[in-house]
Amino acid sequence: MKHITFDNLTSFTYQVLAHAGLDEFSNDAVTNGLCETSLRGVDSHGVRLLPHYVKSAMQGRKNPVPNMVFAHKFPAFGLLDADNGFGHAAGMKAIDYGMEMAQTSGIGGVVVANSSHPGAMASFVLKAARQGYIAFAFTHADALVLSAGGRRPLFGTNPICMAAPREEIEPYCLDMATSVISWNQLKIHRDTGLELPNSLAADDAGLPTQDPDVATSLMALGSPSAAYKGYALGTMVEILCGVLSGMAVGRDIPAMYTAPMDQPRHLGQFYLVMRTDIVGEKDDFCRRMQSLTDMARAEPAKDPRGVMFPGDPQIREAVVRRKIGIPIDSKTLTAFHNLSKNFNITLDLV
Amino acid sequence: MKHITFDNLTSFTYQVLAHAGLDEFSNDAVTNGLCETSLRGVDSHGVRLLPHYVKSAMQGRKNPVPNMVFAHKFPAFGLLDADNGFGHAAGMKAIDYGMEMAQTSGIGGVVVANSSHPGAMASFVLKAARQGYIAFAFTHADALVLSAGGRRPLFGTNPICMAAPREEIEPYCLDMATSVISWNQLKIHRDTGLELPNSLAADDAGLPTQDPDVATSLMALGSPSAAYKGYALGTMVEILCGVLSGMAVGRDIPAMYTAPMDQPRHLGQFYLVMRTDIVGEKDDFCRRMQSLTDMARAEPAKDPRGVMFPGDPQIREAVVRRKIGIPIDSKTLTAFHNLSKNFNITLDLV
Repeated sequence: MKHITFDNLTSFTYQVLAHAGLDEFSNDAVTNGLCETSLRGVDSHGVRLLPHYVKSAMQGRKNPVPNMVFAHKFPAFGLLDADNGFGHAAGMKAIDYGMEMAQTSGIGGVVVANSSHPGAMASFVLKAARQGYIAFAFTHADALVLSAGGRRPLFGTNPICMAAPREEIEPYCLDMATSVISWNQLKIHRDTGLELPNSLAADDAGLPTQDPDVATSLMALGSPSAAYKGYALGTMVEILCGVLSGMAVGRDIPAMYTAPMDQPRHLGQFYLVMRTDIVGEKDDFCRRMQSLTDMARAEPAKDPRGVMFPGDPQIREAVVRRKIGIPIDSKTLTAFHNLSKNFNITLDLV
Repeated sequence: MKHITFDNLTSFTYQVLAHAGLDEFSNDAVTNGLCETSLRGVDSHGVRLLPHYVKSAMQGRKNPVPNMVFAHKFPAFGLLDADNGFGHAAGMKAIDYGMEMAQTSGIGGVVVANSSHPGAMASFVLKAARQGYIAFAFTHADALVLSAGGRRPLFGTNPICMAAPREEIEPYCLDMATSVISWNQLKIHRDTGLELPNSLAADDAGLPTQDPDVATSLMALGSPSAAYKGYALGTMVEILCGVLSGMAVGRDIPAMYTAPMDQPRHLGQFYLVMRTDIVGEKDDFCRRMQSLTDMARAEPAKDPRGVMFPGDPQIREAVVRRKIGIPIDSKTLTAFHNLSKNFNITLDLV
């Protein structure tokens, strides 16, 4: 596996996206989002997506120079029309508006309309947590998760994401699909040819399969005995992102990989930002949050890595990858070489 | 199985709780909470809890006449000190403050401190949804869910609850523990002697067991392959309810059934209420919400009951129980007969 340093990866990604026409704000948001996600070891939502994102900007699905408008109907709750820009750019704007509202109102909610794929939502909530806020992020996605009791998918992997500050530099961060695995993780199995463990996915008839090429849907979190819970969480996210925003929902959402690349997907997202100084000051919250973190990590473990708190695997991986560089799978590497050649941008490997 | 009509059950419960010393507001909240929950078929959190609640009021764990104070530090985010009253009473107050803030700010968050067991949180969010709001409710609980990778529980069943209005009278409602099953469901297995299906619970060593009497912890949602996701959702709820409120967290929370009944448990809860008229008016939201509901229910099904939307099983069960009455298990019936005799309150069975 070839590696690229974080700095070189950031520089390459930024130049590629600039070539694809992204304005500075969008480019900063997408570059930071993709590269930080790869640094944190979440390869499914990292720079593997760059070639797809370039195509979506150049072929018209995404507006590389959006004119986003925030309609502020209530002091603590508003609507951001993302003008079909990159989901990363919409997320960064939304989290900024959320923080602004939370600063004065204590809490701030932002519904995003006319957006697109936001990548790993951790990028947005981590930004807010680093500035001392608790933040939540949600996005809906095209139908990929088998409905509980159903024969086909209606909802997407509809992730739940949250971050909170504590005394240590890296915030607490939860970022999870409401399916057992994410669709991008399934795609990694397709790219690498690895069989899926257990029954995490289903075929066209809604029956379990371990063959990633046969899988057309994912099992909901809690499968098999409590699939209705993962499905229910998916509906919750759909309401926040699709119903509140007035965007298309369920099977009416254009698919990420198979819908025409010249049509906007009109996705919705939902962001929530909260102050932490409800009991005492922010520092008091951070102390209590650190104490919870320490308590959890000190629990007696079966796992040789110990009991981990949400985000711990990503924090550990980022330390390693900052040293040895970020591994790039062969399919992505080929695509990077093509971008490098076609756009005349240097690609420096380790 | 003996049955009681909803009206008789409500009347009996109210009189019993009045005898136990609850003020009118607390009594209304607890009576409605317990009886509506039983009506909806959620027996684990219904009137089965009445004898326990009576004890907790009469022996000092809960304050039957609390003086709750709402500290309104920010326009859309506040702290309700529940003065060790009933969790149901705190929840009803919190949801009222949440709606009041949402009315003007668009959104309202309420952190609750010094509270107790709130029963089924659906009661609170349904109240807000019936008045046209989206609402969320969370509570932490004593350590009962095996940590992902760990040997013992650190967090409780920490449920997630949400409701939203739509065109049909009964709102959408999700109400789920972040474990595969709830602790009260396990207690029903103990009371009835039924073996637990599959491996939903663990013994003292953190190993799976099907014996409800040997089980000392529950498996996190997503077990076995993705237990870290259910565990992560549990941490999210703990942060909202325990860390924000400054209450005890994790294993420091006094256990519901085994801690002394004369000591308050000092639990925390978190409520969030939102307006629905972010895109268009409330009626537009309800129309979109109904259309999502109809779309989901029309999906091709494997399950003979069809694909159900969250809350559908409870809505169906309530229709049945309003006709035939609410079934009371033998252990609860014995306790009811004792309450009837000791408090001199008539118990009318069907």
